[in-house]
Amino acid sequence: MPKKNKEGITVKKDENFSEWFSQIIEKAEIVDIRGTAKGFMVIRPWGAEIIENMYKLYEKELHKKGHKPTFMPSVIPEENLKKESSHVKGFTPEVFWLKEINKEKLALRPTSETLYTPMFKLWIRSHRDMPMKLYQRGSVFRLDTKSTRPLIRTREILWIEAHDAFATKKEAEAQVQEDIQITENVMHQQFGIPFLPMKRPTWDKFAGAEYTIGSDVLMPDGKLIQQPSTHLMGQKFSKAFNAKFKDEKGKEDYLWTTAYGPAMSRILVSVISMHGDDNGLILPFMLAPYQIVLVPIFNAQNKSKVIKYTHEISNKLKCYRTYIDNREEYSPGWKFNEWELKGIPFRIEIGEKEVKEKKFTLFSRLTNKKDLISIKNLSKIDKLSKEFDKNLIKKADKFMDGKIEDCKSQEDLKKIINNGKIARVNFCSTDSNGEKCATYVEKELIAEVRGTYANKNESPKGKCIICSKKSTDIVYIGKSY
Amino acid sequence: MPKKNKEGITVKKDENFSEWFSQIIEKAEIVDIRGTAKGFMVIRPWGAEIIENMYKLYEKELHKKGHKPTFMPSVIPEENLKKESSHVKGFTPEVFWLKEINKEKLALRPTSETLYTPMFKLWIRSHRDMPMKLYQRGSVFRLDTKSTRPLIRTREILWIEAHDAFATKKEAEAQVQEDIQITENVMHQQFGIPFLPMKRPTWDKFAGAEYTIGSDVLMPDGKLIQQPSTHLMGQKFSKAFNAKFKDEKGKEDYLWTTAYGPAMSRILVSVISMHGDDNGLILPFMLAPYQIVLVPIFNAQNKSKVIKYTHEISNKLKCYRTYIDNREEYSPGWKFNEWELKGIPFRIEIGEKEVKEKKFTLFSRLTNKKDLISIKNLSKIDKLSKEFDKNLIKKADKFMDGKIEDCKSQEDLKKIINNGKIARVNFCSTDSNGEKCATYVEKELIAEVRGTYANKNESPKGKCIICSKKSTDIVYIGKSY
Repeated sequence: MPKKNKEGITVKKDENFSEWFSQIIEKAEIVDIRGTAKGFMVIRPWGAEIIENMYKLYEKELHKKGHKPTFMPSVIPEENLKKESSHVKGFTPEVFWLKEINKEKLALRPTSETLYTPMFKLWIRSHRDMPMKLYQRGSVFRLDTKSTRPLIRTREILWIEAHDAFATKKEAEAQVQEDIQITENVMHQQFGIPFLPMKRPTWDKFAGAEYTIGSDVLMPDGKLIQQPSTHLMGQKFSKAFNAKFKDEKGKEDYLWTTAYGPAMSRILVSVISMHGDDNGLILPFMLAPYQIVLVPIFNAQNKSKVIKYTHEISNKLKCYRTYIDNREEYSPGWKFNEWELKGIPFRIEIGEKEVKEKKFTLFSRLTNKKDLISIKNLSKIDKLSKEFDKNLIKKADKFMDGKIEDCKSQEDLKKIINNGKIARVNFCSTDSNGEKCATYVEKELIAEVRGTYANKNESPKGKCIICSKKSTDIVYIGKSY
Repeated sequence: MPKKNKEGITVKKDENFSEWFSQIIEKAEIVDIRGTAKGFMVIRPWGAEIIENMYKLYEKELHKKGHKPTFMPSVIPEENLKKESSHVKGFTPEVFWLKEINKEKLALRPTSETLYTPMFKLWIRSHRDMPMKLYQRGSVFRLDTKSTRPLIRTREILWIEAHDAFATKKEAEAQVQEDIQITENVMHQQFGIPFLPMKRPTWDKFAGAEYTIGSDVLMPDGKLIQQPSTHLMGQKFSKAFNAKFKDEKGKEDYLWTTAYGPAMSRILVSVISMHGDDNGLILPFMLAPYQIVLVPIFNAQNKSKVIKYTHEISNKLKCYRTYIDNREEYSPGWKFNEWELKGIPFRIEIGEKEVKEKKFTLFSRLTNKKDLISIKNLSKIDKLSKEFDKNLIKKADKFMDGKIEDCKSQEDLKKIINNGKIARVNFCSTDSNGEKCATYVEKELIAEVRGTYANKNESPKGKCIICSKKSTDIVYIGKSY
């Protein structure tokens, strides 16, 4: 019987983030990379329950914003996938193809514009049929040619994609803004992940989009990871599929479409990385599979009354996801480590003393402190749970303090990004004219021009940090995944 | 503006069920079969919301019974899929293969025993790690070689599959029984679909199982459709994958596994077919995307007070999924037809009279009757909604009355199954000795031997209805999908 402490993380997050991440996803039983095809993962129950909670909160917000669910096929006929020229150019190298069936060529969907647009064409006749705001929950498949990494770069992604159609460009652009707000409401305000909404340079937009706004999240190792992105497709796909509608005056026009794609399995990377510490995961209260674990501490003599009192408390916490850990083969210390590793927000410890005094000991995973609380004040947990998430967000926001630095010289730039920060610089251009300088940044500094800050309209003062030509934009540069 | 009534179903369910079904899934906007690959479907928002509700209720029950979620890859390496010999033989013809990537051969999962078993092998060391009860929600893919039919026979199936591992055969067999109970608790008691738990003859069991118990549902056209099935895999897969554990005495043994697979997209076929009528869908209260639709009936003069009163009522119904249909471009009659077609359990009509008398008119989709109810009695809806589902189930159960008939001669048998009923007959054998007679039934009567009634231990009295040899079983024969 394993009486000794469960083996925890053996490296410090600050010292070796990459190894810390690998250990935490294995030891907290989030994923398993063994026993399956390269680039595919098994999500274990602990990871799956977190992802289920993420899905629920995301879907709730999408519903609130007027989206309706759909289930599209996982496959796309080749002729559809190839309808929009820049889309096919961008995605073809990443496509998994099925072996032909009666000469029919099918791709596993890498993204679903070419599934939704032909349906919009069938379902929308007039401006009155819009806005049509749809989403689906499911997998997409991308044959990443770079090396794969569990959760971070995988060949199957657990995501949501929303596809919306509008009668005017103005409404479509408003949707792109709403999508950024959804990311803010869910990923930041509920999951505690701050992000920079970056309008991507032309060369980095979604294949087939007019423009793309990605949500860049800074990881503890100073690298940026792209989280949900939203795209103004404009009329590119509707023209490719000849998807038209009649406006108020009876005039025909092509649909205006947008797409938004939050990937749960990828956002989980940020949740783990942003909040976790050397002892393991720290989960937002709203995402934790168990929000409160109750650990009765007993011996043969007091077992029955300790267990009874534990159930008494647990019964009063029915509106939370709770678990009573009364396994006898593990010591209390082993259990404490286990639940700290797994990121449980609150642990309630109950022993002889607590029973006698009609109290309970509450351990918070965020402060790592214990409080002895009277059972009369049990309802305080509601307030404490809200504070837990609020403080978790505050802590994550604080991590971003000072992480963006203005810089004027290439030397500065190098220093800043090598320090795990984001550089804010004057840049010649984010249209194709600027690609040469961006390539220089990529090759010489192993960093990326992530784009301009969406909606900020920042005006550059000075010359391009790379080519010294007149600058038209202020861009953000950082290392990235 | 479409002032005229929305076009409803143009055939009677009793007279042409197949056409009725095709019309209802199109006109109630459940699925769309256009614009995608053969055998794949687009599930539209109305269908998707019903399926989402089905998933939620099913997953809730699985959690209650101790199952935990997982996400397995959608692909299976060929070497894994081919480990268990009867499994590979049964499934290979139905597999979609991906084009090889660096010589790696991957199948789209047709079912996931060969994904779960290698993980059980990694996760389970001792009897203390069990029972391990896992499930996943997702698609499976089967290249059906027969003709495909929307929802009924498709190449991508939206399903749940539960895979469980146990230390003893006894526990595994108890799980098979629990699975039947889950079908009863969810599909029958919540979705209102009565079924016969049929232990399949040897020749019809799941490829790789020791035995299979399928849930047969009689459709209005007198054909049986297989709904959730549960399988005792025994040690077949654990032996193929060498997945062992140590029992209480430290002795090694192979795991005992089971699998259970309710397919949401397929159960929806039964929900539509069992409850619907000539006016359209009738949805169980628990499954309806909108449970109550409020239709204000107004003119230019009374518009504002009718709308205000409608909102007043709607605000008191916040614990339900409600929708206020105040679209001005459609007439009340058009809306009534629309919501009847879409199967809304209750419609609340509010006009001048209702406002004046502080009442509301409640239309029930099940009785097709209207009641004028005082707003003071609004809380009656809780009771009425429970009665709605109870009566829906009662009606479905009544449909089954007299649908099973004993018969002694082949002539009788022919008459019974051609009458859309199920024949209960003496049969020589449900092991391989009986396959010859079953083939005869299939060829001569275009019907199927569905198996013995699970857990009933019915003893045959008389000779096999086909070959006149000694009969060892009582089996049920019917036409099927």
